[in-house]
Amino acid sequence: MTPPSATRVETLRWSAGRLEMIDQRVLPAQLRYLSYDSAESVATGIRDMVVRGAPAIGCAAAYGVALEALRHRHAPGTEFSRAMQRGFEVLAASRPTAVNLFWALRRMRLQWESLAAYPASAQADALLAQAHEIFAEDIRTNRALGEHGAALLADGARVLTHCNAGALATAGHGTALGVIRSAVEAGKRISVIADETRPFLQGARLTAWEMVQEGIPVTLITDNMAGFMMSRGEVDAVVVGTDRVAANGDVANKIGTYMVAVLARRHGIPFYVACPMSTIDMQVADGAAIPIEERPAREVTGFRDDQWAAAGVAVRNPSFDVTPAELVTALVTERGVVHRPDRERLEALARG
Amino acid sequence: MTPPSATRVETLRWSAGRLEMIDQRVLPAQLRYLSYDSAESVATGIRDMVVRGAPAIGCAAAYGVALEALRHRHAPGTEFSRAMQRGFEVLAASRPTAVNLFWALRRMRLQWESLAAYPASAQADALLAQAHEIFAEDIRTNRALGEHGAALLADGARVLTHCNAGALATAGHGTALGVIRSAVEAGKRISVIADETRPFLQGARLTAWEMVQEGIPVTLITDNMAGFMMSRGEVDAVVVGTDRVAANGDVANKIGTYMVAVLARRHGIPFYVACPMSTIDMQVADGAAIPIEERPAREVTGFRDDQWAAAGVAVRNPSFDVTPAELVTALVTERGVVHRPDRERLEALARG
Repeated sequence: MTPPSATRVETLRWSAGRLEMIDQRVLPAQLRYLSYDSAESVATGIRDMVVRGAPAIGCAAAYGVALEALRHRHAPGTEFSRAMQRGFEVLAASRPTAVNLFWALRRMRLQWESLAAYPASAQADALLAQAHEIFAEDIRTNRALGEHGAALLADGARVLTHCNAGALATAGHGTALGVIRSAVEAGKRISVIADETRPFLQGARLTAWEMVQEGIPVTLITDNMAGFMMSRGEVDAVVVGTDRVAANGDVANKIGTYMVAVLARRHGIPFYVACPMSTIDMQVADGAAIPIEERPAREVTGFRDDQWAAAGVAVRNPSFDVTPAELVTALVTERGVVHRPDRERLEALARG
Repeated sequence: MTPPSATRVETLRWSAGRLEMIDQRVLPAQLRYLSYDSAESVATGIRDMVVRGAPAIGCAAAYGVALEALRHRHAPGTEFSRAMQRGFEVLAASRPTAVNLFWALRRMRLQWESLAAYPASAQADALLAQAHEIFAEDIRTNRALGEHGAALLADGARVLTHCNAGALATAGHGTALGVIRSAVEAGKRISVIADETRPFLQGARLTAWEMVQEGIPVTLITDNMAGFMMSRGEVDAVVVGTDRVAANGDVANKIGTYMVAVLARRHGIPFYVACPMSTIDMQVADGAAIPIEERPAREVTGFRDDQWAAAGVAVRNPSFDVTPAELVTALVTERGVVHRPDRERLEALARG
């Protein structure tokens, strides 16, 4: 079986029976791949943010399930079954907020359950095929979503984005950066303003790197400069990704997104959320019900081994926040653009 | 002549005929003093942010003038005069936004001009006395301002602050942190939420350090978490300092202050600005006329020698932003609290 090919940046790739992922903790200084051969090792990679970004986490989890099946393909049925159950559990416990993780695991589980009559090795092959399909679908989704979103950006637009919703957050092309890439492919001159996105610095390290690689003009600012840029008339649109959209249109995304949305509203700047259908969670009524991960203090008191904060300070580290639907100009999905998202419009979208 | 004594944290001190300043670039890892003996060296210290914070910059500049006079106290009149002119110029060119710098230099220049009939050595002695007076006045001002502001904070208040407007930003006690210190001295249980304040990290390094030293509970967050904390009901008031207040009440302060103010308004949280009279610039009609310093790219692409951003990215680094008066609940000065500041109220305040 041939694995689907990614875009230029190969965030995840299937190679010689293993999953390889770019170690996003050390970008852009190093472009290093780490190799994974089990559900547990993939779960650790997700938890430690070797891979991040909701769609990429979903793909990684799908491959994690396939890897677990392949490892046990010669095991007796009950042992295989027990290993698979454990694999699903450890992957589901890796990170709480991005719904794509649970969406991908549900798809893999349904596939697995439909294979009960087959031997373990056949189940493993089919699960790997399903993981490849989720991966390939993600790229198709981002291309479709990107084209819908590109139509929203004017030639010459200066687009602010927060965090990294790029190729590195997906199987390829990206969601928010997919919109920008598609607009550039359509001949529009787009420039990007990248919030650095503390504490993990996805903007400074990942978004800036992706844009520089493609020759798309990109300007880095600290997160607290977005209001200044807007007040000076230097931002024409905001495009961000999302980790989970609730049934009423509330958007969970990287911490700080909410502040950008509030500022955009104050300045009359459109606030677009690039959102694959797999990121919409109709099971969650509104943003208040979305679990928000709190990560280790050490991320806030410094960056990696450079620890600069005063000793003895307490720390909060919520990794996401919720932007209420009323601040969202439009959701951009692979099925089209949903202006002023609310429950009714999302239900209509979900029906297709 | 005995130099006035500072509070616990001696940001600046006069010692053996020289100005010593805490090197705020290396706090809190190192508590190191650097020594200054001329206007030019002090100007370099201000530019490089060895000392920062509008009132502290004013004090440093005053001492810089005195040091220049002392260096040339035995020089012939015209040489002394020329050296002093150069000294004033180099200090005025060190940083553009904080008006206290220009306020202190104007006071020193008026004093100097009034001394024209005296020999250089007498001028030097009088200028040093004037610098000591500016320093001592700053502490008295902060104490008075702190007491007025403390009355605005309820027992148990959780107070968010941005950047460092503490003892390290002044001759002692602090402006925004002076309000908090005075509230604590009055027996109120106050806890502080400190924005880390990229790129120079004054919140993580300086505000957190000051609060930990005094046993005032302090929680560190990244700048992009302020909206999350407010949306969760975890912030009761915001208190910040300022580098310059325009005649209409617009407030220039550390980059990111504007975003905090917009969020505070959205959540109905009072936004207080601690502001010595010396920071009000009635010569500037509104915030649009306040010069905003842009600092080197290297501050945004990393922190000190730890450079993490993607190579080739463009950078913006405005060091301040402007919060329009309409978002300011009150200015807290040593003369009292000015609610809903505007030109009329500031003119009345300036008249005394």
